[in-house]
Amino acid sequence: MSDAAHQLNCLAGVRVLDLTQFEAGPTCTEVMAQLGADVVKVENPKGGEPGRILGAGPKPGADAYYFMVYNANKKSVTVNLKSPRGIELVKEMAAKADVFIENMAPGTIEKLGLGYDVLSKLNPRLIYAQVKGFGEGSPYERNLAFDMIAQAAGGNMAITGEYGGRPIRPGATLGDTGTGMLMCISILSAIIERQTTGKGRRLQVAMQDAQLNYTRGSFVNYARTGKPQERGRAGFGGPPPSDIFPCKPGGPNDWVYVFNSHNNPEHWRRTATIMGKPEWADDPEFLDRDKRVNHADEVNAMVTAWCQQHTKKEAMEILGKAGIPAGAVYDTGDLLAEPTFESRGIIQTQHHPNGDFRMPTFPVRFDGKPPQITRSPLLGEHTDEVFQSWLGLGASDVKGLKDEGVI
Amino acid sequence: MSDAAHQLNCLAGVRVLDLTQFEAGPTCTEVMAQLGADVVKVENPKGGEPGRILGAGPKPGADAYYFMVYNANKKSVTVNLKSPRGIELVKEMAAKADVFIENMAPGTIEKLGLGYDVLSKLNPRLIYAQVKGFGEGSPYERNLAFDMIAQAAGGNMAITGEYGGRPIRPGATLGDTGTGMLMCISILSAIIERQTTGKGRRLQVAMQDAQLNYTRGSFVNYARTGKPQERGRAGFGGPPPSDIFPCKPGGPNDWVYVFNSHNNPEHWRRTATIMGKPEWADDPEFLDRDKRVNHADEVNAMVTAWCQQHTKKEAMEILGKAGIPAGAVYDTGDLLAEPTFESRGIIQTQHHPNGDFRMPTFPVRFDGKPPQITRSPLLGEHTDEVFQSWLGLGASDVKGLKDEGVI
Repeated sequence: MSDAAHQLNCLAGVRVLDLTQFEAGPTCTEVMAQLGADVVKVENPKGGEPGRILGAGPKPGADAYYFMVYNANKKSVTVNLKSPRGIELVKEMAAKADVFIENMAPGTIEKLGLGYDVLSKLNPRLIYAQVKGFGEGSPYERNLAFDMIAQAAGGNMAITGEYGGRPIRPGATLGDTGTGMLMCISILSAIIERQTTGKGRRLQVAMQDAQLNYTRGSFVNYARTGKPQERGRAGFGGPPPSDIFPCKPGGPNDWVYVFNSHNNPEHWRRTATIMGKPEWADDPEFLDRDKRVNHADEVNAMVTAWCQQHTKKEAMEILGKAGIPAGAVYDTGDLLAEPTFESRGIIQTQHHPNGDFRMPTFPVRFDGKPPQITRSPLLGEHTDEVFQSWLGLGASDVKGLKDEGVI
Repeated sequence: MSDAAHQLNCLAGVRVLDLTQFEAGPTCTEVMAQLGADVVKVENPKGGEPGRILGAGPKPGADAYYFMVYNANKKSVTVNLKSPRGIELVKEMAAKADVFIENMAPGTIEKLGLGYDVLSKLNPRLIYAQVKGFGEGSPYERNLAFDMIAQAAGGNMAITGEYGGRPIRPGATLGDTGTGMLMCISILSAIIERQTTGKGRRLQVAMQDAQLNYTRGSFVNYARTGKPQERGRAGFGGPPPSDIFPCKPGGPNDWVYVFNSHNNPEHWRRTATIMGKPEWADDPEFLDRDKRVNHADEVNAMVTAWCQQHTKKEAMEILGKAGIPAGAVYDTGDLLAEPTFESRGIIQTQHHPNGDFRMPTFPVRFDGKPPQITRSPLLGEHTDEVFQSWLGLGASDVKGLKDEGVI
């Protein structure tokens, strides 16, 4: 338990019946769990959700880090969805839940008999949430999707890459995690609305559609020019400098982003002065942002020469203190080595019986501290507890269901 | 008004006092406005927030598309924050508000006399939200930040790019819009909590910190290997194919992402069969995912040869129907040309007196339809209405304040 974080109970009493897997759905419910909701993963008794074995974990054969990173703060129960009694159990839980959420392949949840029509009748207050790759009514509504498919088909890959180069898959999994965040916003809004209406909502989001919202700024360029936004235009056509520049000692991530805002000529004056060209600070050829575009090569050469005399962290510190926007290209190792992420609770250690894992938490501070990470559940760890507290089943009932292969 | 969307009132009655600018803060309040909150932008009477003039708009001299895309569905009032009476007016509004939000440079809001300590005393139910570049307690807490600075310093740029190439700025503005989404989640959670506690919250998020959460999957690789995640590993080391492949007719965005999941050998069988290598479908050298990694060149050559016989849309359609995950690299032009985005309400037209603008809305469907986009406000368009409804000021009071240069 870290002093830098605290247990948040903003969503105390909100029961989430979680049939999600991999990343997009689990991201939504992980945030809700970190903010205090009672999130119960429903998993296959034979191995659990597929994310549990995706890549290595702290121990051979144990839950993968992949699972740990997307399922902190949740509970796990096992239910065999191939058993009719198992499906009945899920329905009984849905009757007690505030939120039901799934991200299975198109049509699967309906085939299981757990579609919106069924569950909303059992519980009209239920908020029924679905994450799919493509939207209902899209030509691709039956297609399978993974993060990179959504990023390609949603417009994000086309705007990422070097100028003149091929499209690049962004490192952030915006197709998955980005979509999960939008569903989380929607569920919380539906909870707020329900306090007035008493009614649930059917919520659906497509990973492809979510990308359009995250990249809606690129539609600005289309409106201006009638052409798709190009990728890799340094600063997207703004005045220089707005690019990454190489630093000492020249490793793959020894770069710093240096930026001068369109709106603030002081950025340029400070940059020219600190980088040894004070005579350019007030020269209208450079100070005027539209004219400076014509001197991009000279400006970039000046910044490159200066940056190569500094490490990325020195560069960020010196430029930052001078009031020039600058960001060192931190990699995961740099981030884990920076002590204030831990002292501020942004990076926490997930203490797990299989081994510890240092990972980022939900980064918003509530009255000074972000939410505490608690560990991801072992498969079926909370089966007894949840069936008792949600459904009132006794220990012998639960044992019977286990013996029959229902849970 | 499109039939494909509807006005949502999930957040009806939630009053948001919005002192944000540019993109990170405005994203948060735009989502809230689209979901039905009463969002009132407080702007400088002389020109409004700086986003209004960032780049071109539909008409010379009118609001920029940049402003339109991040400020749909909101209201605007003008207040001169250099006038003591103007500051008093903001305080009076804060006393009536549910949410106060700002993303000014570090220390600015406190210097204005509108800090958390001041406003939370006036209104203990107020949810007070701040978006900054770097967190309190970070070595860079006083630094300026823009989207790309946060993406560099938050770990996102280091994992984006070609293998062996330099880091690349992702096209999506995750530093801004991504951060705004996390703040939106937090505000909604605080609203839910307040219904029990009766108390507001102080919420703070840093754009740098937000990047760590969006890229937390990259911490998995660090935990496994002790090394920072590299960029540009096709499929991040998974079995081939997992990459983009060039299609007819060879334009800059004529690519398709083709993926085979680790977990599903059927993907490979289908891929080999459809691409003319049925003899590889069940060959253990190819079917076994770990062995297939050793045949990456042959597999990628097969996929490349097949893709070059098809356009990206044909490829996506054929592969998708065959149950192989595939995503054409859609650019903004492709997305705007695809009619189902409009018929499903994902892309809507913002009808603005200065000219129309086709843009994506918040993409989650609530009972079948996403929220309706209404246009961004003209500067001060709602000054009379809001001062009357929030503060009970009459027309002559408002006129007096205008004459005195207060609003």
